[in-house]
Amino acid sequence: MTPYGPQRAVTRIARVQVVLFDTFGTVVDWRSGVTASVQQTADIHHVPLDAAAFADAWRAKYEPSMRRIRTGDRPFTRLSRLHRENLTATLAEFGLDITPNEVDRLNHAWQRLAPWPDSVEGLRLLKQRYIIGPLSNGDTALLTRMAKYASLPWDVIIGADLTRRYKPHPEAYFRAAAILDLAPSAVMLVAAHNYDLAAARQAGLATGFIARPTEHGPGQKTDLQAEADWDIVAEDLMDLGQQLTVGSPDLARPKP
Amino acid sequence: MTPYGPQRAVTRIARVQVVLFDTFGTVVDWRSGVTASVQQTADIHHVPLDAAAFADAWRAKYEPSMRRIRTGDRPFTRLSRLHRENLTATLAEFGLDITPNEVDRLNHAWQRLAPWPDSVEGLRLLKQRYIIGPLSNGDTALLTRMAKYASLPWDVIIGADLTRRYKPHPEAYFRAAAILDLAPSAVMLVAAHNYDLAAARQAGLATGFIARPTEHGPGQKTDLQAEADWDIVAEDLMDLGQQLTVGSPDLARPKP
Repeated sequence: MTPYGPQRAVTRIARVQVVLFDTFGTVVDWRSGVTASVQQTADIHHVPLDAAAFADAWRAKYEPSMRRIRTGDRPFTRLSRLHRENLTATLAEFGLDITPNEVDRLNHAWQRLAPWPDSVEGLRLLKQRYIIGPLSNGDTALLTRMAKYASLPWDVIIGADLTRRYKPHPEAYFRAAAILDLAPSAVMLVAAHNYDLAAARQAGLATGFIARPTEHGPGQKTDLQAEADWDIVAEDLMDLGQQLTVGSPDLARPKP
Repeated sequence: MTPYGPQRAVTRIARVQVVLFDTFGTVVDWRSGVTASVQQTADIHHVPLDAAAFADAWRAKYEPSMRRIRTGDRPFTRLSRLHRENLTATLAEFGLDITPNEVDRLNHAWQRLAPWPDSVEGLRLLKQRYIIGPLSNGDTALLTRMAKYASLPWDVIIGADLTRRYKPHPEAYFRAAAILDLAPSAVMLVAAHNYDLAAARQAGLATGFIARPTEHGPGQKTDLQAEADWDIVAEDLMDLGQQLTVGSPDLARPKP
């Protein structure tokens, strides 16, 4: 028996004052946006390439580049800089030769990502009852521009450059709560990634899951459903907003 | 001759991407809000006192308490904690004896401040063209709750707990720009306090002044007008918003 039974989920949710969200994949569709920017750059240079494969290759370097920082092998470096290093490597792999200014512009693809169709409306609903913000490995500058581009109505933006820790390091969650002058239990993390919620729960946060089954494209095999009894499981952010603000009998039912 | 002539103001304003605002006094009316909270507490305890004088006495301890941190005599301590220490001292001076919970609640008066009548509309206008946020000595937790209470539509909130410096320390301005991944010249500070703008200009920021002639009550003697050729001088935040978004011939005229 885990201590996280359905009865206690209601109690944990009742303590929540702030709802924080993983962003890449959970709130915005990074793969479509990055693919479109890559395609645009390739077209300008008349280089035929598989832009989605480029986006996936670029993204695949994300986790290894953060891991060195998480383990302390490298001093904290903001995500936009890691993205740029990884972009340079990916450009070489795909044989695309562009100017440093073009590299910068393409790197900004991560600031120009469209929200999933339910995201903005769901966030607006949640904002009526809670303080809302991202809890992302993105840096504050990137997340601020992303929010401006995608009209994400955050109350506060705490980038990984402020906590100086990348998720799923426990301090990434603790420090975000501390910046808001709250105990971890007053904060909920909403994510489309089970590993992120597992780490958030370990750190004492409440947890909410929504599936984003096409985040990684049509053949996605991971995170298709909740893999633990997260405090709340919703169809999407609109459904999550309705469950948390209007209330729902689902809150009292066992989770999958 | 200062290098900050009127001709160059237009150029400096053209570089601005982010407009940051002093909050206490510039965006919100701290004195009325704090006075009302003090009055309420005194009424509950049937203690007759001059609530405005209490608010002024409390606020008077603000600058000295930050000064020790600015000079390095004390490690960085967030403003809400300094406010609480200063409140305890002020309560003793005024002979008001309340419980620790009541002290906490009264200390939250700084999160429940009304905006000046033009603030929210002016910020909404500026938000259409710029990234907007506070650049305040308040901490992020306090500023987030203040924004929620007063409906301040910030895009990003950078509290002094994130820069770890209190204005007018130059690093308070530099670090806010650095968190946004910008040169200081891409940031404008708007304030009702000439000393704050002088420090911001020294740090390389563009500067905007509005007067708040009743911030300190009816007998205010300071900051009744611009004391230097700030890049923009406006009647209030609505006027500032109109000048910066609609444009104005005033931008090309010498400043007082």
